[in-house]
Amino acid sequence: MKRGRFISLEGGEGVGKSTQARLLESALAERNIPAIITREPGGTSGAEAVRSLLLDPENPDWGYRAEALLFAAARADHVERCILPALQSGQWVICDRFIDSTRAYQGGDAGLSDAEILALHAIGSGGLLPDRTFLLEVPAVITAQRLAKRDGTHADRIGGRDATFHEKVARIFGQLAEAEPQRFCRITADKSPEAVHQQIWQALQTMLAEPD
Amino acid sequence: MKRGRFISLEGGEGVGKSTQARLLESALAERNIPAIITREPGGTSGAEAVRSLLLDPENPDWGYRAEALLFAAARADHVERCILPALQSGQWVICDRFIDSTRAYQGGDAGLSDAEILALHAIGSGGLLPDRTFLLEVPAVITAQRLAKRDGTHADRIGGRDATFHEKVARIFGQLAEAEPQRFCRITADKSPEAVHQQIWQALQTMLAEPD
Repeated sequence: MKRGRFISLEGGEGVGKSTQARLLESALAERNIPAIITREPGGTSGAEAVRSLLLDPENPDWGYRAEALLFAAARADHVERCILPALQSGQWVICDRFIDSTRAYQGGDAGLSDAEILALHAIGSGGLLPDRTFLLEVPAVITAQRLAKRDGTHADRIGGRDATFHEKVARIFGQLAEAEPQRFCRITADKSPEAVHQQIWQALQTMLAEPD
Repeated sequence: MKRGRFISLEGGEGVGKSTQARLLESALAERNIPAIITREPGGTSGAEAVRSLLLDPENPDWGYRAEALLFAAARADHVERCILPALQSGQWVICDRFIDSTRAYQGGDAGLSDAEILALHAIGSGGLLPDRTFLLEVPAVITAQRLAKRDGTHADRIGGRDATFHEKVARIFGQLAEAEPQRFCRITADKSPEAVHQQIWQALQTMLAEPD
């Protein structure tokens, strides 16, 4: 049996990752290619339990090292119990966020180095990487507008802090894409969902044409 | 202020680690040396929450990679929130099990390599090692007798499986002690608690005599 393909969708909040996951699953189904949609953090009961621990208000204050180990533990469970079995059974896996989100959100000056994040991923999940990663990007000005709308009363303080953080996230995502052009496909996502889907679908044609 | 000393007590179950921790704390108190007793897994509210996750009957079946990451996350919290602050404030820390228990219990053929366990410890806890580790050892025949008593009705099956496992644990502990003779002190623990304590106390005299 042919191993399924592992596709991840990455990018900031609200760029349409989950919509694109559903459109891709439908397009694959029309070609009789079985696929599952999953997401991080979470994806299995064990990983969801770790997620609750990270978000539990009684433990609000994990250090960034403990937090990174907890994320890696959740991912190890998700990979072992969900992603690898699906791929091995021939299904495609469409994952809403994966290791690159950890590198972009938890990485950078304030957290673990990228080498440490990848070392945890190697130990926890055998260093599994997607076959193809779609990075959905919108212009910074649109992100800023969304953040301003999200909290009108504190737009300056919250919006200001968030803008810096989201610029960091977008910058690291861009650096990761530049470093691995074979795996990453950058998609300009400020278009209609169908137009974005067509870009993704076009980019997958080579993979779809590969022999069994 | 002089940094406190970090002492760990290691060894199999029932060898008297917690009794020796209390006797050591009392002896230090008589010399006006402040000390705390802590234990692993656990030691902080975050680490206890991770411990519950590991023991939760709804998540009985963690893979060994996720389990190792969860243990490392609990230790990272314990080190950052309990052990390091105590040492920095001048207290001695007496810890009932630490990294060497992970190496002995989770290591070996079926689990992570020792290098992987130490890599997680380096990322999570800066590779912190005790200043001195007391390995409490009893002859294998005594361990076997205890295990047989623990479950008389299934002595052969349970006792048999446990004996092999506990032999592995004792063997790895011994190898770790041989590899780091400066840090480890092997203590023959099949004596009275007071006699065992005297061995530990003697071994600490050099450390106690160090200048402030």
